[in-house]
Amino acid sequence: MSDTSATTQPLVSAFRWVPDFARGLVRDLRVRWALEEIGRPYRTVLMDAAQPRDAEYRAWQPFGQVPAFDDGAIRLFESGAILLYLGEQDETLLPTDPAGRWAATAWTFAALNSIEPAVSRLVSLDLFHTNDAWSAEARVPALEFVNARLRSLADALGELDWLTGRFTVADILMVTVLRNLHHTNLVAAFPNLAAFQARGEARPAFQRAMNAQINDLSNGDTP
Amino acid sequence: MSDTSATTQPLVSAFRWVPDFARGLVRDLRVRWALEEIGRPYRTVLMDAAQPRDAEYRAWQPFGQVPAFDDGAIRLFESGAILLYLGEQDETLLPTDPAGRWAATAWTFAALNSIEPAVSRLVSLDLFHTNDAWSAEARVPALEFVNARLRSLADALGELDWLTGRFTVADILMVTVLRNLHHTNLVAAFPNLAAFQARGEARPAFQRAMNAQINDLSNGDTP
Repeated sequence: MSDTSATTQPLVSAFRWVPDFARGLVRDLRVRWALEEIGRPYRTVLMDAAQPRDAEYRAWQPFGQVPAFDDGAIRLFESGAILLYLGEQDETLLPTDPAGRWAATAWTFAALNSIEPAVSRLVSLDLFHTNDAWSAEARVPALEFVNARLRSLADALGELDWLTGRFTVADILMVTVLRNLHHTNLVAAFPNLAAFQARGEARPAFQRAMNAQINDLSNGDTP
Repeated sequence: MSDTSATTQPLVSAFRWVPDFARGLVRDLRVRWALEEIGRPYRTVLMDAAQPRDAEYRAWQPFGQVPAFDDGAIRLFESGAILLYLGEQDETLLPTDPAGRWAATAWTFAALNSIEPAVSRLVSLDLFHTNDAWSAEARVPALEFVNARLRSLADALGELDWLTGRFTVADILMVTVLRNLHHTNLVAAFPNLAAFQARGEARPAFQRAMNAQINDLSNGDTP
């Protein structure tokens, strides 16, 4: 990669500090992982999660979240959009045949619209509301919701290694979504989902991406 | 449209019966709206929302939801994926220049991953848990969450008519997401968002799509 000039390296926004519970789970991991899969170097723009984002950043990422992406040609936000964009540049991440490409696109949206919202509803209760009297009762339907979605996902995955049969950006997204349930045994209850998650986490590109996120966080000041 | 043979008409799954609160809000509306924008006739496969979906349907839509889509060339699920697929077939729905196309793709994901989960969390409390003692307290953070997201969305939209300046599939998705808050005054608190939603709902294609959904529901048996 040493022949790649700095100006061709895409920028990815990430954090230099997050609360402990978020370490290794921040969504820039998805973009780092995709870039590592295709051996593409990148630079990070680091922010402190405890500080508000300024107007300049919000012009890049309207919700003040990470990741945002800029390769000099296209400025993008939303991890799903960034991964489809990278996927179109390298068949390693997204097939070029229409059937394969659209199956991966459907699963990309499924990870972000059918699974992640159910996961986030539970995680939000478990992280931010465990001391609230109402949260134990609120957790009952939240748990039912995520379990029903995981069951459908497990049925759809079946014996496959990856959601569409071969590795795509949809797997990056789904594995990183499932990882947010690490404080529960919900994924473990579906052995094929647990194996799918482990298969993703075992990829060298995942491990490089994870190390890079943790390293950027380790270098940050605590507030 | 009379010269279009039946075999070239895409299939869209929808419901013949839903509970009253869901009438006019079911997600097949998004696909109907996109198809109406490009004047493309379609056929519906109707199911009863009160009945469980069978294995055959789950092979098409793994979560048993609507819409699913099949045009003979590609079978798809997830409204975001279906709308991007249709968008690539007609510039009315999605620009072909890379900057415009990727901006619309980012906003497509934003509608489904940054706005809809916040909206659904609140709507789920308001529709299914109003009689539960815990729900009033659970509603406080849910309301804060959706309000923060709407404020970011309103800031990003600014004075624009549409999310990326011109109408795209992202607007179809965002308008249909915002419509789920019709039982609140949350959108009205942001005049530019309310105007954006009204602008979408005033499009003839939206109105044809809405009439088609209601008509299919009116013909269904109640359980």
